[in-house]
Amino acid sequence: MTGLYTEPVQDLIDELGRLPGVGPKSAQRIAFHLLKVPEQDASRLAHAITEVKRRVQFCDTCFNIAESAQCELCSDSRRDSSVICVVEEPKDIVAVERTQEFRGRYHVLQGAINPIEGIGPDQLRVRELLERIRGDVVQEVILCTNPNIEGEATAMYLARLLEPVGINVTRIASGLPVGGDLDYADELTLGRALEGRRSVES
Amino acid sequence: MTGLYTEPVQDLIDELGRLPGVGPKSAQRIAFHLLKVPEQDASRLAHAITEVKRRVQFCDTCFNIAESAQCELCSDSRRDSSVICVVEEPKDIVAVERTQEFRGRYHVLQGAINPIEGIGPDQLRVRELLERIRGDVVQEVILCTNPNIEGEATAMYLARLLEPVGINVTRIASGLPVGGDLDYADELTLGRALEGRRSVES
Repeated sequence: MTGLYTEPVQDLIDELGRLPGVGPKSAQRIAFHLLKVPEQDASRLAHAITEVKRRVQFCDTCFNIAESAQCELCSDSRRDSSVICVVEEPKDIVAVERTQEFRGRYHVLQGAINPIEGIGPDQLRVRELLERIRGDVVQEVILCTNPNIEGEATAMYLARLLEPVGINVTRIASGLPVGGDLDYADELTLGRALEGRRSVES
Repeated sequence: MTGLYTEPVQDLIDELGRLPGVGPKSAQRIAFHLLKVPEQDASRLAHAITEVKRRVQFCDTCFNIAESAQCELCSDSRRDSSVICVVEEPKDIVAVERTQEFRGRYHVLQGAINPIEGIGPDQLRVRELLERIRGDVVQEVILCTNPNIEGEATAMYLARLLEPVGINVTRIASGLPVGGDLDYADELTLGRALEGRRSVES
């Protein structure tokens, strides 16, 4: 045998191993799984990969996933163009949309600042965000990046960057999750919840 | 949007989610990764999947992976046909070959008995194993399934099944791994090591 496995199997293991979160053991497991499944199951997966690259692109305006130059949200004229919600990834748009609390526009950074992985503002869609708020349409930018180290760093960076522009820059609240239990909350979250306390309206 | 994501993206997430060890969150992560990578990276993966199904099959004799009707090991006339090493998966052959301790033939069951997942002897290549040992060429069958619940159950089942055939049926030894530390060994392994103790040759 050349290498451990016959060439097409080794190639597949190598390609699978490049996917995020797929280690060498998982890659091997998935490869053998694909060897065993019926031909049409494997080709459905191969086809789905090809199709996604052929049909899906990123929106020219907000960098959400789109099937044409503009995503469905950007082409929806009923949405409020005065508010932009800045998120890290297209999947975050889905999460915000599910709340049905937001009817404005989005901007997808396509990542977060992460010096360890070499991701700085230049690797993100920051320049494009600045261009979008250049006119006087946008009144508020909501920084909706993840409440983790990278997301917080990104939000801090953008807040400073947008300060001279003179628009309203807000950050989503950190605090206890609804339905959560006080004694299960970590001290950071509880600290944030206290810091962000509001007066009770009665 | 129909569903959460545009159709090609949702299709890809669904197909990825069918792979072993890939949950909904990982499927989503991999799909967005594939959206971001250059076209040729994604098509290399799709091509590797198609190629593996086109070029790789299972050996007619031992059910190892093969690029023709017989795998490289079965077509090697220098190997000893009197001993068959029974393993669960093709990857186990690679592990045994690495030891350079075995020069006989293999038989891949393509799984292990697992009632919870509905895998019984009929779902494995047990019938084909019986056919192989029908002649008087095979003198020994080494049960080389994993030393876990499913592998042990499979070995026990095969040992009983092969008893009336009158050939030598052996099981690989369980015990402490070489280079292991006695006080890190679990009690089951240490128990097996004691049970399988041998007289010291001096």
